[in-house]
Parts: sequence; structure tokens; C-alpha cells
Amino acid sequence: MRFDEAYSGNIFIASQQDYKESQAVLYGMPMDFTVSFRPGSRFGPARIREVSLGLEEYSPYLDRHLEQVNYHDAGDIPLPFGNAGRSLEMIGEFVAKLLQENKFPLGLGGEHLVSWPIIQEMYKKYPDLAIIHMDAHTDLREEYEGEPLSHSTPIRKVCNLIGPQNVYSFGIRSGMREEFQYAAESGMHLYKFDVVEPLKNVLPSLAGRPVYVTIDIDVLDPSAAPGTGTAEAGGITSKELLQAIHLIAGSELNVVGADIVEVAPAYDPSEQTQIVAAKLVREILLGWVK
Amino acid sequence: MRFDEAYSGNIFIASQQDYKESQAVLYGMPMDFTVSFRPGSRFGPARIREVSLGLEEYSPYLDRHLEQVNYHDAGDIPLPFGNAGRSLEMIGEFVAKLLQENKFPLGLGGEHLVSWPIIQEMYKKYPDLAIIHMDAHTDLREEYEGEPLSHSTPIRKVCNLIGPQNVYSFGIRSGMREEFQYAAESGMHLYKFDVVEPLKNVLPSLAGRPVYVTIDIDVLDPSAAPGTGTAEAGGITSKELLQAIHLIAGSELNVVGADIVEVAPAYDPSEQTQIVAAKLVREILLGWVK
Amino acid sequence: MRFDEAYSGNIFIASQQDYKESQAVLYGMPMDFTVSFRPGSRFGPARIREVSLGLEEYSPYLDRHLEQVNYHDAGDIPLPFGNAGRSLEMIGEFVAKLLQENKFPLGLGGEHLVSWPIIQEMYKKYPDLAIIHMDAHTDLREEYEGEPLSHSTPIRKVCNLIGPQNVYSFGIRSGMREEFQYAAESGMHLYKFDVVEPLKNVLPSLAGRPVYVTIDIDVLDPSAAPGTGTAEAGGITSKELLQAIHLIAGSELNVVGADIVEVAPAYDPSEQTQIVAAKLVREILLGWVK
Amino acid sequence: MRFDEAYSGNIFIASQQDYKESQAVLYGMPMDFTVSFRPGSRFGPARIREVSLGLEEYSPYLDRHLEQVNYHDAGDIPLPFGNAGRSLEMIGEFVAKLLQENKFPLGLGGEHLVSWPIIQEMYKKYPDLAIIHMDAHTDLREEYEGEPLSHSTPIRKVCNLIGPQNVYSFGIRSGMREEFQYAAESGMHLYKFDVVEPLKNVLPSLAGRPVYVTIDIDVLDPSAAPGTGTAEAGGITSKELLQAIHLIAGSELNVVGADIVEVAPAYDPSEQTQIVAAKLVREILLGWVK
Amino acid sequence: MRFDEAYSGNIFIASQQDYKESQAVLYGMPMDFTVSFRPGSRFGPARIREVSLGLEEYSPYLDRHLEQVNYHDAGDIPLPFGNAGRSLEMIGEFVAKLLQENKFPLGLGGEHLVSWPIIQEMYKKYPDLAIIHMDAHTDLREEYEGEPLSHSTPIRKVCNLIGPQNVYSFGIRSGMREEFQYAAESGMHLYKFDVVEPLKNVLPSLAGRPVYVTIDIDVLDPSAAPGTGTAEAGGITSKELLQAIHLIAGSELNVVGADIVEVAPAYDPSEQTQIVAAKLVREILLGWVK
Amino acid sequence: MRFDEAYSGNIFIASQQDYKESQAVLYGMPMDFTVSFRPGSRFGPARIREVSLGLEEYSPYLDRHLEQVNYHDAGDIPLPFGNAGRSLEMIGEFVAKLLQENKFPLGLGGEHLVSWPIIQEMYKKYPDLAIIHMDAHTDLREEYEGEPLSHSTPIRKVCNLIGPQNVYSFGIRSGMREEFQYAAESGMHLYKFDVVEPLKNVLPSLAGRPVYVTIDIDVLDPSAAPGTGTAEAGGITSKELLQAIHLIAGSELNVVGADIVEVAPAYDPSEQTQIVAAKLVREILLGWVK
Repeated sequence: MRFDEAYSGNIFIASQQDYKESQAVLYGMPMDFTVSFRPGSRFGPARIREVSLGLEEYSPYLDRHLEQVNYHDAGDIPLPFGNAGRSLEMIGEFVAKLLQENKFPLGLGGEHLVSWPIIQEMYKKYPDLAIIHMDAHTDLREEYEGEPLSHSTPIRKVCNLIGPQNVYSFGIRSGMREEFQYAAESGMHLYKFDVVEPLKNVLPSLAGRPVYVTIDIDVLDPSAAPGTGTAEAGGITSKELLQAIHLIAGSELNVVGADIVEVAPAYDPSEQTQIVAAKLVREILLGWVK
Repeated sequence: MRFDEAYSGNIFIASQQDYKESQAVLYGMPMDFTVSFRPGSRFGPARIREVSLGLEEYSPYLDRHLEQVNYHDAGDIPLPFGNAGRSLEMIGEFVAKLLQENKFPLGLGGEHLVSWPIIQEMYKKYPDLAIIHMDAHTDLREEYEGEPLSHSTPIRKVCNLIGPQNVYSFGIRSGMREEFQYAAESGMHLYKFDVVEPLKNVLPSLAGRPVYVTIDIDVLDPSAAPGTGTAEAGGITSKELLQAIHLIAGSELNVVGADIVEVAPAYDPSEQTQIVAAKLVREILLGWVK
Repeated sequence: MRFDEAYSGNIFIASQQDYKESQAVLYGMPMDFTVSFRPGSRFGPARIREVSLGLEEYSPYLDRHLEQVNYHDAGDIPLPFGNAGRSLEMIGEFVAKLLQENKFPLGLGGEHLVSWPIIQEMYKKYPDLAIIHMDAHTDLREEYEGEPLSHSTPIRKVCNLIGPQNVYSFGIRSGMREEFQYAAESGMHLYKFDVVEPLKNVLPSLAGRPVYVTIDIDVLDPSAAPGTGTAEAGGITSKELLQAIHLIAGSELNVVGADIVEVAPAYDPSEQTQIVAAKLVREILLGWVK
Repeated sequence: MRFDEAYSGNIFIASQQDYKESQAVLYGMPMDFTVSFRPGSRFGPARIREVSLGLEEYSPYLDRHLEQVNYHDAGDIPLPFGNAGRSLEMIGEFVAKLLQENKFPLGLGGEHLVSWPIIQEMYKKYPDLAIIHMDAHTDLREEYEGEPLSHSTPIRKVCNLIGPQNVYSFGIRSGMREEFQYAAESGMHLYKFDVVEPLKNVLPSLAGRPVYVTIDIDVLDPSAAPGTGTAEAGGITSKELLQAIHLIAGSELNVVGADIVEVAPAYDPSEQTQIVAAKLVREILLGWVK
Repeated sequence: MRFDEAYSGNIFIASQQDYKESQAVLYGMPMDFTVSFRPGSRFGPARIREVSLGLEEYSPYLDRHLEQVNYHDAGDIPLPFGNAGRSLEMIGEFVAKLLQENKFPLGLGGEHLVSWPIIQEMYKKYPDLAIIHMDAHTDLREEYEGEPLSHSTPIRKVCNLIGPQNVYSFGIRSGMREEFQYAAESGMHLYKFDVVEPLKNVLPSLAGRPVYVTIDIDVLDPSAAPGTGTAEAGGITSKELLQAIHLIAGSELNVVGADIVEVAPAYDPSEQTQIVAAKLVREILLGWVK
Repeated sequence: MRFDEAYSGNIFIASQQDYKESQAVLYGMPMDFTVSFRPGSRFGPARIREVSLGLEEYSPYLDRHLEQVNYHDAGDIPLPFGNAGRSLEMIGEFVAKLLQENKFPLGLGGEHLVSWPIIQEMYKKYPDLAIIHMDAHTDLREEYEGEPLSHSTPIRKVCNLIGPQNVYSFGIRSGMREEFQYAAESGMHLYKFDVVEPLKNVLPSLAGRPVYVTIDIDVLDPSAAPGTGTAEAGGITSKELLQAIHLIAGSELNVVGADIVEVAPAYDPSEQTQIVAAKLVREILLGWVK
């Protein structure tokens, strides 16, 4: 007997109580176990839901209302604290179920490693999958401190799985020299510093393709998203990130799922990081779920 | 499809997944709508659950382990934001159901007004109910700013319902003159400033009685519980409050339910208020649920 | 015997002690009683005054010095805590007095509802009044949770009073569908997302008109003004808002009063929200009081 | 035209509007210019007033109500920022006026140096003045970093002025070796670590004497008063400090004035330091003003 | 060319520049890599040094002055971030060197695991070593989440090394059932909840023995030390902990080294945790180094 | 015996242990003694080093790696707390030594006054020195509150020393009228509000000149650098400031030294101010040290 009805504090605004009828499912992945510098993203999903109460259900950007999208907030996956391996398995199993039932998965991290099992499942269903990746960091390491399961490695794993030529990274402004070399030599598409302009150029070439979009909140400048583990100066504004979401919404892409990761509320007493993330959730639901 | 399994972040430690078999049920009441000075207790239940991860499941005070108590964390009741009247109704309905199924209700506030519908249901089941009330404030107003549904009124309502002679308040150090006069004249039992000593004196007289215990976290000194709406200097220590819980645990009382209210995490960046509250929850489960 | 002399902590820099000789009067409206999500704007005026000590009295934007404007900081109107109705009356009475004595009223909120009684008085004096409204939110609701006196309703009330065709809103990026529909159908002028460009277009048409300007600090992006009750991502920068003030300063408008509202310092430990608000106060005094 | 009426935000609760009829006057001294380690006490008085709204006007300790004391909150003395010498002069002038008009002065600091000009004026009026000083620190230096006007020197100055044998310090737990030597050799009365027990012993000997009481909030343990410039572990609880105030209230002393200093709110996001200080103000008004 | 002179910000007050002549050496161990719940103690040593500037060099408790102790602050051992194994080795090597040169090692953590290599070296030098351990937690696990190198295991390791009958734990109020069973059955000395009284009883039996003292700051109640990884309600006051240090100072023990661990400043914006820790450092230097 | 090896917490990433072989030397100047409004920049250098751990050693902007620059982090100069005059002397002596040994000095403040002794030494070595100054404030006062050694005066002193025609200020948006008049009349080059565009125009004229660059972090908008003593709205973004550094890196200038000042971490719980400052340090090392 856990409460299932929509509630402002624990459930994202306008969530539908009925899972079966829903087109999209919002779910949290409260995991930050591989992060040693500034952990805390395991509280991201809960805090994003909390501040959603301050949002309207209508978007003046898209002229759409959340009542036009039948989505269900499933809460957080009950990941075992400290156990990264089992947590990734559980995320994979959950997403596999969603995909089987033709739901649009919209995940909230948690650290960026949570995207890895999701994309594995996505790829099983969509063999011609492409990835749009917005981030400050390359996340292309093969391992971190000797550990292949790290928040610094997920995009490299994805490249290995689906082919680097199917991976498009935007807004990147930090990484090891070797990571940038890999990007340059492997054929993946890495756009430094900016998001909107390169995205405009890329979108036509992806028309009709199934695309999964993973957004690390630190693609934003620290001024707009201070609550994250590895804030990196020189990023984009929230206006630009909203514009990127709307560009994709207006494109020919077949967006088949998405996630927003690395919101770590403890570093942001103003709550603005979760506030912008909540708005991104709404715009993605309204713009990408069709 | 909300997740039901125990999870460190969203569910109190050692919660049993199965509601039906449980002896006790933990539930949250995220309501702070009648508080204008320093609101924020609607986030209390969620934050108490979060920090429970830092607790052990075993109590060296009671030499008992949470596996010896079959309890279920039901999450937060989905109270409608801003609607105090409907929220109180929903709390009453939920507690009525628990009582019908012979569960021990352990509620987490939220503002103190949430205790009012609980005690109404308790009284229906236990006509000889007594109340133990630990608080810095009398909460004996008839109304607050013209409003009878206020966080300053619940104990007065309780006195009117079950008779002031059945109400025992401890640790009180703030109130209007009229409230203290009411206490003195009505026959209720109000003990100023201290908890442990007067409690020792009172407990024998309540032996065998069904007793509901309501703990406003501000009975603690602000040094031990800064995260509350109306902190009041001159309170007791957390050692003393633990001792009070253990005194009750070792008494002949028939404790039939309890709540902990007014944890408002925003005023306490150190999280110590929710940390002490989580420990109280554990000790109550281990000491009072039999 | 309250102290009347200018003091850095309690009075805005360069305030003149003599009310009678002053051209403009700065006053605070410490009211946030209709706000339930994140209250705290009742502390806005006091905190804006405090940080004014960090400002220079000279503006390199306008090449003017506060000694060229004879203004008086009257402190906060002593609004009764929790009583919204009486508070609005007191604000109206105070502004009526200022207008009778030909002072330029510059008000500091408090929640946005405080603008409503001000504009009522303004309209009595200036029947051809126009309103410039900079805000993230439409504020066009007819009621909020059944309550017509709400921080979500003031601009709708203004439209009803002075005619929607005389109301110009800028920077709007949040509201209910019905509010945007009302804006579109009623003839009011609502400019989404941006401020500077639409303002440039509008200003010539208002030449010579008496105009009251109300600035909700949340028109700024949360990165520039995190200390506000309902921060909304995707806003303008402080550079743009300063530019808007300077555009009006350089226009043919007859600005007859202004307010800055919704500064809620508790959400911004960096104090940058009150810091930008204090600078806006200075630029308004230097640019609009003539 | 500054507002004179009692207002919850800017004026301490229950302040009477009429200065002339008042018995006691509350006033702030927003000065922290000689503090280099952790300044910020210039915001103490304003913050103490703000939180007074959370207090009741009735004391269950003394069974008295603020309506039984006719007192007036005069606001903050407009001290010139950065100018310690002139600030001390202004404090002296203000207190001289209060004493001339037979008011009980209750001052709020600001740093401890503000007590110096007050006590100078007190001594002019009461040549047999004694001082009760509650503090963590001796404050007996002759100078600090070569500067005789320092927050570390006021009690030494007082000893020189009125004679060390008339100075009683309680709760002291920090100072230079030379300061403790001075205390031991000069004949002043310095009680280390504790307040309540030595005070009980001292009070009879001061019966009938005019006594000024200066309370540095850091006499409290940092757990009870973290918001102060030089917090010092090992202090007393707020219960003990309240008890000390009540002991004095019940004694034969002729308390002729008092101050509470060194509340520096920036170090205490929980606001508990100003909360305890506000309660001390109420208890002093109710217990010492006769 | 690193600066070697005493400086208020980077070096503890009154540190002597000359290592060779020093009797005692203060050193930091900035390691928190095995902590997943609330890390951050790697910043403890630096913050303790910073606030030492607010301390006097003289202790009125012991009537001694730091100039009477020739000690040297060696800064932090440059532990490799994220590498617990190598870090422990480096700590061991450093302490071995200190012991060889007959210095009294006073270590600042960092997580509690840092005590393990220190005690290994101590035991090599002093085969009849006894341990005094003040802590909220037993720290007697054999492993934590499958990992033998954890902040929950150091005291168990110590028991295995030097024999449980030589280990004395005080103030313990949290642990697994198995840990308390181990304590009861193994012959180690575990005193629950309190420190001062059991310590008084134990000290005579340790007269003349070489004793190493390890203090986990969380032995203090969270009200006195909120800045720690696993705060546990119901602890002792800073007055009691100071008393414990002075009891040892006045005893016949041969204290041969000490550490203070688990200060995690991020959870304590008031800085009171590092403030009390800095005072403990001073009292230990003055009372235990002979 | 202070530790000399590179360590993540106390030493900037990738610092070389060997001073003698180093081309550049990073050093801190922990001084904020002349600042009365919001002090705290004495903690800037330590906090910038701490967060450097979150940076990569490679710059994708410049395609260079810190291993290509042999630099040494010398720690903080041990400035005597509260003694501004002696502190400035010590800074001068230290920089003189660096210049004698042909090191590139990269200083971290501390308040802006620390640049004054540096530039004096620079001018002795480079008689044709030019200054690039990025700041929100003119810093051109002759004195501040009667004190010539103030954080508001360093650039005026520099103008007097090397001639105003050799001083180039960018991003200025605050100052006294007299300061702007001085700038206009003296022949110095003051560019208001912007940095990038005027810098592009100026750089060619400085080709081949020895240039010292002093960056006050408050040239950034408070949204990007809230942690500073006198935040001033309307500033540039971190993207623009990075671009300015890269413009200089790609120019014909002979940069002979630099500093970054006024990082005051206490006002920025998000740490973003030190995070951007640490990135500036890396880019300066990679771009300007040749």
C-alpha cells in the first residue's frame, strides 16, 4: 500500500495515476556511488519532483498542456545503496519492461552512468539507434581510477556498442586529451562549447532515425545549474538549452527516450538547478512524446 | 506501478514490503498550509526517510532490532497542496483504515494540526484514550488569526473532544497567557519546561490506559532541532527525549499510536533535525510497537 | 523617536532626511501572506536596503549621481502580519498620500499583489495610465485556489480596471493556457520571453503617456535572481534588465511611479538578488525621476 | 516620515509607539568595524527584531505579559559605517539622553565595544555602579593589534573606569594569560566556565546596588548560539542563561540597564542565535524593568 | 619552496617552524574515500587550522600556554585522491618516522579508517599499548559492504591486533547487534552513551600504560558537532568532552599519541564543529604532551 | 617539514614539486584586512586549489596540457593577520625573488590591494610595463575612508607609478564620479561594461609590450561569480572572460605575470566562483606562460 495518486511533493505535476494507459513513464535512478568528488545526485529525482509544484502545466513555448500527454510518474527505482553493478541491472530490467510495453522512458539521474543500461536496452529494440548527448564533459574514458563502471565512461561504452559514428555530443568543454583524440579519430561527432548552432546543422541528417537523448545538467553554465557534481565554467544558458529541446521537438527525429542526469541539489541552496530540470522535463514531455 | 520495495532514499530503513502482515505503519503527512511564519514542514517526512540510511537497524538502548518489528512504510499521503480541510479529511480516512486493520499508526508531519484528525479516529476506537503531548508550545488556542484550523489549536480541540483531564503536556515553555490559564483551570495536565521528571511521575497513573503520543520536534532545544517552524530556546536535549521514549517503552502504558511533527528541514543545513527524528522513529518502533 | 537619518543598514544609500522636500519616496511593503510555495518576500525591502551600502551613488550608465535626485526612504509600511486585506488598504492609503503631495512612489515588495492597490491610486490620478509589466509570469488569473487576492492575480485586476489595451507585459514565460488566451483575445500587449526588443518597439507609442512600471524580479533568469518565490528558467540577464531601464529613461515616457517585487532573500545565500535589485533602485531613481 | 508603529518585521513585538510614556527603550547598535575574524554583528539587531514575531508576548517563566511593560523600540542608531570613534560617541549621546529621561536602556549589538560608551554614561549617573558581565571571553585586553578601541578591550576599560572590584564576569572560558592574571590580581570578580552557581553566590552581595548587565551571546555554547563572531566551545545552555536572567529578576538588584551583543546572523542559517536573543530581550523586559 | 612559517590560515596557531626541535607534530590526513553516505572529512584538517585563529594560545582550564609546548604543524600528508590502500600506507610511513624521532603524533582526519595504520605503528613501538576510543559508533565491523578497508571497521582491526582487552570505547550509542555482541564476548571494554563517568573509573587501571587516544568527533551530540558524516543524536556535550581530555591530562596515563577524526565541514555552515575540534587540539597539546 | 608533493586538496593540480626548474609559480595572498563590507577573500586561494581537483589537466580551448607547462604551486605567503602594511611588503619581497629567478608569477588573492606591491616589482624589472585590468570597479580612489591602503585604490596607485596612459581597464561598471572623471582626463584607457570587444581593439597596440594582467573576479556577473566581496550586477559571462584570456593568449603580447583576486568563498555555497577561478588559472598557465 504505497500511495499511487498524483501528489505535488512526491510525484511530478500532472502525472496520471494509471500506468497502463500512459504513453510515457517518468522514473528516477537515485544512484551516485561511483562519484567521489562531489556526490549527491541520488537526491536529484526527488528534488526535481518537489519543485515541479512551482511549474505551470502549460508551455507557452510549445502551446501544449500536460493534459495532452498521458504520462505516469513511477517514482524512483529502489536501487541498493552502494551497489553500482546491481543498480545498473535493475535500471536495465525496468527500462526493458517499459520498452516492451511501448512506453517512452524519461529517466532522472543520478550520475551519468545510469544512462548506460538504458541505452543498452534501447539498442536492442532500435538497432539503428543514434544518441544525442549534451554535456560539459566528454565522458569517453575507458576507465576511471581503474574502474570501468564510472560516471566518466558511459559515452565511451555507448560508442563501443552502437558505433561512434552514431553518437553526437554537444556543448563539450572538458575532458582528457585522449578523449578528444578518440572523438576526433573514431568518427563520432563531438561539438565543442556550443549546442544550438551545431544541433541545427545535425538535425536534418538524423531525420526519421530513432534517437535517444541524454542531457547532463552540467552542459549548462554553473550560473544556471550550480547544483551538480562537476560544474564546469563556460557553459550554455538555460534559454539555449530550452531552445535545443524545442529544435528537436520541431525536427523530423523519432525521439524514443531521454534522460536528465547529474542534478545534485546539495550544492545549490537556491534550488535553481532542480527548477530548470523540472522545466526541461515538462518541455520534453510536451515536445518529444508523440 | 509505483515501486514498493524498501529503498534507502524514499522509504525508511527496514520497512517491510508487505502491508498486510505489518503490525505498524509509518506514513507521512506533508502539510504546512496553516503556517505563515516559517513554513516548510511538508518536506519533513521525505527528509526523515532519507537520513534513516545513516542509522543502524539495531538499538543499543533497547537491545532490539528492526527485524523484530514488522512494519511498513506507506509513504506520504497525497495531500492536496494548499487545501487544509481536505487534507485533514484524507488523514482521518487513512488512519481510520489503519485502525480498522489493527495497525499501529506512526505518523510524520507536517505541521501539528495533522494530529487532530488522527486523534479523532483514535478516540472513536478507544473511548478512554489519553494523550501524551511533548511540545514547546501549548497549542491550546481556540483559533489563530480568526482561523480555527491552525497549527496553534490542535491540543485545545483534543481537550474539547476527550476531556482536558485526559491530556498530558510536557516540556511546554511558550503560549499565550490565556492558554496557560485554560490549562490551569480546565484540569488538563501541563508540565512546564521539563519532560523526564514529570513523565516519571505521571506514567504509573496511566498504566493500562490506551495512550496516543504526539511529539512536536520543537520540544527539543533549538540546538538539537534547529529545523522547525517556531524554534523556542530553553528546551530539552535529545538525550532527554530519548530517555522519555524509553521510559514510556518500559512502562505499563498501552501505546496505540504516535506522531512526530514540525520537522522543517529548510532551516537546518546540517540535517541534524531529521537525523534525531529518524532515531526517534526507530526507537518508537522498537519500544512501543508490541 | 525612530531614527530618521540616513544609515547604511536600515535606509537606502543617499536617502534625504527631509520628506517634504523630496521628489521621490522609496518605501517597503513587507507582505508575502498569499504565497504558499516559497514565501519570504516580506524580507525583501530590508535586505535590498542593507546591500545598498555596497553600491556607488554614481551611475556610469546614466552619468548621474544620487545627490541630483532628492529622494527619501520612508522605511517599510507597518503591514499587519497575516492580514492581506488590511495590508492592501494600508498600501493604498500610503500611496494616495504620496500622490497627493506629488511624490514619485518607488515601492519595494513583497509579493506582487502589493502592486494592485498602488495602481488603483495611480489610476485615480492618471485616467490615461498605461502599465509596463516585466515578469516571468502572466499574473492574469482571476483567482488562485479560489482566492481573488493572490500573487497570481494582480495584472488581471489591472486589466479589468484600466483596460487590457493599456497593459504591456514583457518577458513572460509562464502561465496557464487560459491566461495566454485572455492576453491574446483581450487586446492587452503580452510579449513572450524577451524584454529589450519588444520594449524598443513599444516605447514610441507610449510617448507622453503617464506610465507606471512594475518589475517582478523573476523576469530575470534564476541564475541572476535565485532569491525569488517562483523562479522560472529561461529568463533575461541583469544586463538586459538594466538596458530596459535605460531605454525607458531615454524615452519620451512620463514615468509616474514604479515598483520592484518578489525579492525573497532566503533562497539566495549569495545575496545577488538583493544586490541586483538595489542597483535597479538606483538606476530608476537616477533615470526615471525627473 | 519614518513609520513609527509597531511592525513585526522591523520592530520588536509589542513595542509601544509612544516614546515619551515608555519606561524602557530598546535600541540597536549596528557596529562591527573593529572585528576582523568573523564580522557581521551589525546585522544582529535587525535580525533579532525579525524573529521576535515567532515569540509570544507572555512569559510562562515570569507569568508576566509585555503589555505590563511600557517599552519603545527606537530602531537602530544610525552609526556611520566604518567609523568606530564617531559611532561610540553617538551611542554615548543616545544613552545619555535616555538616562536623562529616566528610561531603562536595553541595547542590542553589534560588537562588544558598544558597551563601553553606554557604561561610561551609566557611571556618570550611578557612581556606585556594578557590572555583571556574561561572556566566553575576558575582554580584558589593554589593546588589540595596537588598537585600544577593540572588541577585546571593553571590560578592561570598564575596570579602569569604575574599579575592578565592581566588575563581575561569569562564564569566562577564553582569554590571554595576562588577562586572567589581571583579573586575579586586580580584585575584579571573574568566574570561569559557569554562570548560574557563581551568580547565586554573588547576588546577595549586590543587593540594592545599581547594576548594568552586559551579555555577550557567546557565553552560550556554540550549539545554542552558533551565530557569533568568536564562538567558543564549552559554554552554557540557553536553559542556564534563562535561569540566570530569572535569578537576577528575583534578586534585590537594581538593574539600571542591559545589553545583548555579538549576535552575528550570517554564521547561523537556522536563525537560532537571534531566536534565543529575542527571548532574552523579552525576559529582560519582563523581569528587570520595574 | 613551500612556505614553512606559521600562518593563521594554513597552519595551526603557535606552530613552531622547526620540526627537529619539536616534541609534538600535528598532521592532517585528508581522506574520506571509503565513506559513501555523507563524505567530506577530507576537508577537516584544513578547516580546523583556519578557525584556530579565533582561539587563544592560553588555556584557562590547564593554565598552560602553547609556547610551553614545542610543536610543529606539518600540514596534510599528500594522500592520493581515491586510493585508500596507498593512503593508509603513506600514513603509516609518516607516523613511523615520527615515532622513530620520538615525536608525539597528533593526527587530524579524515575518516576514522586513518587511525588504523597509525595504531599499527604505535603497537610496533609500544607492545603493551592500550587504546582509548571515544565515538558514537562501535566501528567494530569486520567489513562494510564486503570491503574490509572501511570507516566502520578500524576498531575491530585494532582489537584483532592488540587484543580486545586493551581497547576501551566510550560514548558508544550506535552499531550492529553483532558488534555489541562482539564487544560483550571478546573482553573489550565498551561503555555506552557516557564518557566522563566510565572514564573516571577506568583511568586508574591504565596508570603508567602507553595509551593512544582516538576521538571521533561524532562522540559529541549533533548539536555540538553537526559537521560530521554520520551524526548520531543523544551524544555528549563539548563541556563533557573537554572534561574527558582534562581527566586524562590529570591522570597517570602515558599518552603516546592521539587523533581527532570525522570533522566534515560541509554539513556545518556555522563552523562550530571545526571550532570545537580546534579547541580539542589545543587542550591535547597542552594537557597530554609532556 | 611541510609536505611538498602535489596533493589534490592543498596544491593546484599538476603542480611540479621542483621550484627551481619551474617556469611559473602559483602563490596565494590570503589578505582581506582592508575590506569592511563583505570580507572573506583571504580564503580564496585555498578554496581555488581545493576545487582544482574537479578540473582536467588538458584544455580543449587551447589544445594544451598542464604537463607542457612546468609550474610550481608555492602555497600561500604567510601574511600576518590584520597587518596590511607588512603583508604588502612580504608580497613585494616574494615577487621580487620570483622575478629575479625569471619565474612567471601567477598570484591568487585576497583583496585587490595585493596587486599593488606586485606591480611595483614588475615595474622595476619592466620599465615599459603596461597593465590590463579586468574589474567591475574602477579602483581609482586616492583613498577610502581616509586610508590610502585600501582595496579601492590600487589602480590609482598604479596610474601614478607607471603613468595612466599605460593602464587599460575593461568591464568597469561601478565607481565614483571623480574616478570616471580621472579616467577620462588622465589619459588612461577605461572601457565600460564590456571586455571582449574593446580588448580586440586594444591588443594590437600592445604587441611586444610587457604586460601584467590583473583580474578581479567581480568583472564577471554575480550570476557567474557570486562569491566576491562587492558583487555588481550587469557583468560579463564566464564564456566571455575565457574568451578574453584566449584572445590574449593568441596575441603578440609579452604577458609577464598575472593575478586573480577577490574570490570570497563564503558567499557562494555552490563553489562556482572558485570553480571558474580555477579554470582561469589553468587557462592562464596554458595560454600565457611561454
